[in-house]
Amino acid sequence: MSKGFDLLSEIRSQKPLVHHITNYVTAGDCAHITMSIGALPVMAHALQEVEEVADSAGAAVINLGTLFPSQVESMLALGKKAREKGIPVVLDPVGAGAAAYRTETAWRLLEQTTPAIIKGNEAEIGFLAGIKDVKIRGIQSLHGAADPLRSARRLQEKLGYGAVVAATGAVDVVTDGKREARIFNGHTLLPLVVGSGCMASSLVAAFAAVEKDYFLAAVYALAAMGVAGEIAAETGDGKGEGQTKPPGPAEFKIKLLDTLFYLTPQEFAHRARIEII
Amino acid sequence: MSKGFDLLSEIRSQKPLVHHITNYVTAGDCAHITMSIGALPVMAHALQEVEEVADSAGAAVINLGTLFPSQVESMLALGKKAREKGIPVVLDPVGAGAAAYRTETAWRLLEQTTPAIIKGNEAEIGFLAGIKDVKIRGIQSLHGAADPLRSARRLQEKLGYGAVVAATGAVDVVTDGKREARIFNGHTLLPLVVGSGCMASSLVAAFAAVEKDYFLAAVYALAAMGVAGEIAAETGDGKGEGQTKPPGPAEFKIKLLDTLFYLTPQEFAHRARIEII
Amino acid sequence: MSKGFDLLSEIRSQKPLVHHITNYVTAGDCAHITMSIGALPVMAHALQEVEEVADSAGAAVINLGTLFPSQVESMLALGKKAREKGIPVVLDPVGAGAAAYRTETAWRLLEQTTPAIIKGNEAEIGFLAGIKDVKIRGIQSLHGAADPLRSARRLQEKLGYGAVVAATGAVDVVTDGKREARIFNGHTLLPLVVGSGCMASSLVAAFAAVEKDYFLAAVYALAAMGVAGEIAAETGDGKGEGQTKPPGPAEFKIKLLDTLFYLTPQEFAHRARIEII
Repeated sequence: MSKGFDLLSEIRSQKPLVHHITNYVTAGDCAHITMSIGALPVMAHALQEVEEVADSAGAAVINLGTLFPSQVESMLALGKKAREKGIPVVLDPVGAGAAAYRTETAWRLLEQTTPAIIKGNEAEIGFLAGIKDVKIRGIQSLHGAADPLRSARRLQEKLGYGAVVAATGAVDVVTDGKREARIFNGHTLLPLVVGSGCMASSLVAAFAAVEKDYFLAAVYALAAMGVAGEIAAETGDGKGEGQTKPPGPAEFKIKLLDTLFYLTPQEFAHRARIEII
Repeated sequence: MSKGFDLLSEIRSQKPLVHHITNYVTAGDCAHITMSIGALPVMAHALQEVEEVADSAGAAVINLGTLFPSQVESMLALGKKAREKGIPVVLDPVGAGAAAYRTETAWRLLEQTTPAIIKGNEAEIGFLAGIKDVKIRGIQSLHGAADPLRSARRLQEKLGYGAVVAATGAVDVVTDGKREARIFNGHTLLPLVVGSGCMASSLVAAFAAVEKDYFLAAVYALAAMGVAGEIAAETGDGKGEGQTKPPGPAEFKIKLLDTLFYLTPQEFAHRARIEII
Repeated sequence: MSKGFDLLSEIRSQKPLVHHITNYVTAGDCAHITMSIGALPVMAHALQEVEEVADSAGAAVINLGTLFPSQVESMLALGKKAREKGIPVVLDPVGAGAAAYRTETAWRLLEQTTPAIIKGNEAEIGFLAGIKDVKIRGIQSLHGAADPLRSARRLQEKLGYGAVVAATGAVDVVTDGKREARIFNGHTLLPLVVGSGCMASSLVAAFAAVEKDYFLAAVYALAAMGVAGEIAAETGDGKGEGQTKPPGPAEFKIKLLDTLFYLTPQEFAHRARIEII
């Protein structure tokens, strides 16, 4: 068994603090999944405390989901403090490409704070990479770049500071410029769950808090999300014989969170379908 | 089967974007129900992006649930942009009548942006209509006007610009000044679910995004909510023989969201109890 | 049966309004539990309306979970208004000890508004009490004071205005300087539920709205939370014979809320394990 699967146990024993500046729509979900995987969430966005809280964090998430001006200053402060302290930051550029304010803020954060990991859906990553055939509606990726790995690769190069770039979609992809991974786990219900993208970013941060190779951290975190989604889809009320409906998205979300809570490194290893080149 | 029931299919195929400026208490629920019905939610409230996001929206929701000053400016900007572009806005005057700040903000929005649809509980609508015997405690309608249809009618006339007014209660009512509807679907658990009113507004917006007759959009959206509530109450854990408890509000909310996700136009038509005069 | 258990019925018949200024992570959970216990939640934090809303409230919660400057002014205004009107305020100093901004804000509120009840986890209470061996990480109590009752007692004395102080942990403790209580109910899943601490504060406020002896209100509210947690842990999907897993935290939260909704004074009395000295 690859040591990547043991990161689950590492998180559970180290209980790293994951500092979030995130949106108010899915903040509760992000806190919940952070607890489910075994880490400790803290949401703190006042400029007065962002640096102090970051001081004891193992990783941070900056999520642009419901951006407003005072939050941007706090995001910049968190990003700079984290860089100074060597704490990995996961930037989730929710809605980049859908509104200029989000795109510009994403670039400000990328340029001024060089976050360790950028994780978006394939359309957001494609847009930031400058791929032309991306289509975004609100925060949803209607169809991303024809080739998400090409988008991730291009953004990674464009950034030029050795970032890990992850693009989620039917197949999730991750690259650090040297290695490339594809993760084949997941379920069609996942993108129907409000906050699944935000929650995936929280997972990536929890993994990065205990694994200094941020490429591997992102790969195994996204695989954990996909594996949990697969198991959750099987365990809903609709699973019984003669029943044709899978769980709906609301029940599925509950099952997803609880599956992660009980996921063992063995089951994770057994289910994961990861390809690293 | 009336074409109103097919709006379900329309939403699922068009996937309209529903732009929300809403409260932070139930924002996640509103996003969720928007997805459950087949539309795409986006929450964007920064003045920097409100107009740009509205540009690609099929409908908008303005919800006064947790009002604060900078949000009001964004609500006005969204309302004006939507009017200019012909995008239907659903105004949910949460707490109007309970606090002057909310009442005044509701009137500012009504006068300056003429939202297509006003949807509140019967006490909020009664209060805005100037009915005297309304009693509100916080955001709850303790008892509304004796006759909610009279309240809706009076507010509709008072507004004078052809708005659709919907008041929810034991029986939901809708009027556009020419037609009047009563919707008899629903369940006693619905008002016990935090966010059920806010979620109903999101549904109305999703329907209005695909049905230009906003009166019909509101009628069928509220019927869908009521029908889903009825089905959800039957499918909780407590439904088995020998069990006397229906689901509690928390389980009921999960079932409600998933029922909407799987609701077919046929089942919707079969269950709906709508009276249009 | 002690009359404390009948507070459940009192809340359900009086339906007091519980005014919250709280964090955006668990605001929905707080609203939900307030409804589950039979009270009415209202979240209002704009300075324009805080005093007016407080005017019709039976109790208030001030929760420092996601503090920002404009909110602090509203908290002070709410605290002062509540004191003037004799409305009990529950202060939940989330994260006091983890960031100076929260600690300072907690003290500003304590000194300027003398809230009736202070309810935190044992580490927060220990920190405010000035106990040295407290360890906090983010908003989590890693290990509190060796003796939580000592912490609560010391903070109660330090405050000097007759406050009720409650510290939650494996055993919950409450003191008003004259009496001391220990509540032995609860479940290991409770601290794994995001928002369980915040929800407990909402319950305390709901009980304090109908019981002028705030010491008893806090004791019975925390017992109700613990009892509901115990029942919820037994009724998850994993309860069947041959199954080894209890419910996960997400399912457990749903069950917890619904258990409170259906909890009878009789079952409450039967399960409660309270020791008052």
